[in-house]
Amino acid sequence: MSRAGWPARAGERLDALLAAEECAALLVVAKSGSDPDIAPFVRGAQLGRSLVVAPRGAAPRLGFFTPMEREEAAATGLDLLTPERLEVARFAGERPAPGAFLAGVLGAALAGSGVASGRIALAGHPAAGELLAAVRILEGEGWTFADGNGLVRRFRQEKVAWEVVEARRVAAATCEAFHRLASRLAAAREVAGQLHEGGEPLTVARLRREVALVCAEHGLEQPSGNLIAPGEEGGVPHNTGTPERVLRPGETLIVDLFPKGLLYADCTRTFCVGPVPEAVAAAHAAVAEALALAHREARPGRRGWDLQEATCAFLAGRGYPTPVTHPGTLRGYVHGLGHGVGHELHESPAFTKQAGAEGVLGVGDLVTLEPGLYEPGEGGYGIRLEDMVWFGPDGPENLTPLPYDLDPAAWAR
Amino acid sequence: MSRAGWPARAGERLDALLAAEECAALLVVAKSGSDPDIAPFVRGAQLGRSLVVAPRGAAPRLGFFTPMEREEAAATGLDLLTPERLEVARFAGERPAPGAFLAGVLGAALAGSGVASGRIALAGHPAAGELLAAVRILEGEGWTFADGNGLVRRFRQEKVAWEVVEARRVAAATCEAFHRLASRLAAAREVAGQLHEGGEPLTVARLRREVALVCAEHGLEQPSGNLIAPGEEGGVPHNTGTPERVLRPGETLIVDLFPKGLLYADCTRTFCVGPVPEAVAAAHAAVAEALALAHREARPGRRGWDLQEATCAFLAGRGYPTPVTHPGTLRGYVHGLGHGVGHELHESPAFTKQAGAEGVLGVGDLVTLEPGLYEPGEGGYGIRLEDMVWFGPDGPENLTPLPYDLDPAAWAR
Repeated sequence: MSRAGWPARAGERLDALLAAEECAALLVVAKSGSDPDIAPFVRGAQLGRSLVVAPRGAAPRLGFFTPMEREEAAATGLDLLTPERLEVARFAGERPAPGAFLAGVLGAALAGSGVASGRIALAGHPAAGELLAAVRILEGEGWTFADGNGLVRRFRQEKVAWEVVEARRVAAATCEAFHRLASRLAAAREVAGQLHEGGEPLTVARLRREVALVCAEHGLEQPSGNLIAPGEEGGVPHNTGTPERVLRPGETLIVDLFPKGLLYADCTRTFCVGPVPEAVAAAHAAVAEALALAHREARPGRRGWDLQEATCAFLAGRGYPTPVTHPGTLRGYVHGLGHGVGHELHESPAFTKQAGAEGVLGVGDLVTLEPGLYEPGEGGYGIRLEDMVWFGPDGPENLTPLPYDLDPAAWAR
Repeated sequence: MSRAGWPARAGERLDALLAAEECAALLVVAKSGSDPDIAPFVRGAQLGRSLVVAPRGAAPRLGFFTPMEREEAAATGLDLLTPERLEVARFAGERPAPGAFLAGVLGAALAGSGVASGRIALAGHPAAGELLAAVRILEGEGWTFADGNGLVRRFRQEKVAWEVVEARRVAAATCEAFHRLASRLAAAREVAGQLHEGGEPLTVARLRREVALVCAEHGLEQPSGNLIAPGEEGGVPHNTGTPERVLRPGETLIVDLFPKGLLYADCTRTFCVGPVPEAVAAAHAAVAEALALAHREARPGRRGWDLQEATCAFLAGRGYPTPVTHPGTLRGYVHGLGHGVGHELHESPAFTKQAGAEGVLGVGDLVTLEPGLYEPGEGGYGIRLEDMVWFGPDGPENLTPLPYDLDPAAWAR
């Protein structure tokens, strides 16, 4: 059986996951080749609507819907289910309802992959209503469907060689963006209570433009934008930062960048230009120690939730509220310690209490570690330090080895 | 009933669509705020997993899953279903299976919006397997589900004021990118059969970087990349163009850009630096005339498919194969004339024969018109010219009023 473009180890892992779920095949239905469930198979091919059928014990097939994409599809190295084999033109003519059309194509894809009946693990992120209509038709034809999104999530958790190479590349470009911001911030001077640089007020928008330029130079997108949140805006962890906001001396500036190449990178640093308020200095020191602790403790075999509890214990010991000591707190440490990252910005492993066995870190995982402390409201602050770590066979590798200093001038030293 | 942040006209259109489908409410389930089915409601808010419930006759509610997103959610001006009201924490603790968790939250969202039972139009692009598992549970609790993706597609077809403003902005930035490419190409000179510019070989990658920089300056992303396809690469319409490929004099260069702000723009031009081969000149003239014909004919009330047939008739009259005269042809005119564009790169109206009543152009629609001619294989060429047109109340507006010239030097005049 040909496994062109498909590494044997990946095939074995997928087969084992299908066996555990007692499924005859995985079926991924995608709106485009960038659907995180199909991306591990197509490796960045620019495809529109597409699908993958991976029968247990056989190589995955890639199905596409328009002959115009034949070259992109062929470049994946996968066995192809062409629009002709999927009878796209016939079903489009005979079945105008989108769900019925989709059922026809999916049925052809399964049958054309030797999966004549049985239990199918369903994944991908297609149009929900259409998919539901298609599933009802296919169930009438003898197939049954199980939730396959979790299966693909587990499959994606262990990164393969090309994914690690790409994650390193995106992380390196992200680090370059941080250095550019640090040098802009280091050049800033106070003018009447505001920071100016290059003769103009230094705004969030100007920093954001600098990040966008670095991304452009490296062919990265920012599908979810970024967070550049000064002072009280950074006091709420997911505040993106108001573009027109002029930075001020003595306030914190959270910069959280999460650009995407074929995979995401994710990194956060916090700056403070000028005199550092005592509360900020203390909180920054605590966050830096919490991150160092997390770096020491995070290893394959450990549960993400155990690391989160250790972080909470450490920060509570420093006098800050945490989700363990003060459930639902909006002050102090208010979020999780980290998350898997890859084809999605947040993927497995989860560091939550509920994650169970799926929350155990494994060899090959790519995760963030990101303790933070927050004081919302007028005069408040936000501090977060986030690294991205890959647990390779030779040990952990920090893909974002940047300074942690609040003072941007210290970054150049 | 409050319709904060929600225009009355949009509410009336949504109610009419729900009435026609005999649905009590629309339910959009989204992986993020950029899901094209939820984007018209949230207007660019940076949200992760989220949902909208729009009960018939009442204002839509926005549901979000983490308290950290409360500020982003509030900025939409919609009535909110907070994580507390959706009982996210309780369901996460009690229902570890993702489908069961989702069923709990969706049930709380529907009941919390006054939709206690009935037929629900389901839309969005959530994880397929999880959604299927959730639907089975909700069906057991008395709700039934219809395909609502088509309903949202029809709803999205007529652009509202902010969407038109944003489409114009993104289209203008796209035009700027074309002018920058034209000036780079106009400065190119032949060196040993290749084009050089600025002392170096002019590659696809260098042009792509220029486009990325313009996008960065305007805060645009290119989630689907772009097509910059020289010579024989342009002979296959969806070939993206090899980065390392050095441009040559006398060959065609298709540039198809489709960047995204809150909405997509979509525009194509074709260049040829140096002496233009006779076949290319003739094909370019035919494509330009076909586009002019399409601009004259495209009006609200016309079917996209009728325009496609008129284009085929015109190009067949010039001696080129078309999908009507030669079904499945890979030479000549090989694709459709256009498509709707907006929160998705390809949306309603479709210009296909199968589109039926949905293929009729309407006031408020935003569409592309993009005839092309292709000669695949060694020494081949590709030519496509694509404009983006909005059918406003005062008539059609071409959002991409760029030159059509093959010669980049003519662009500066």
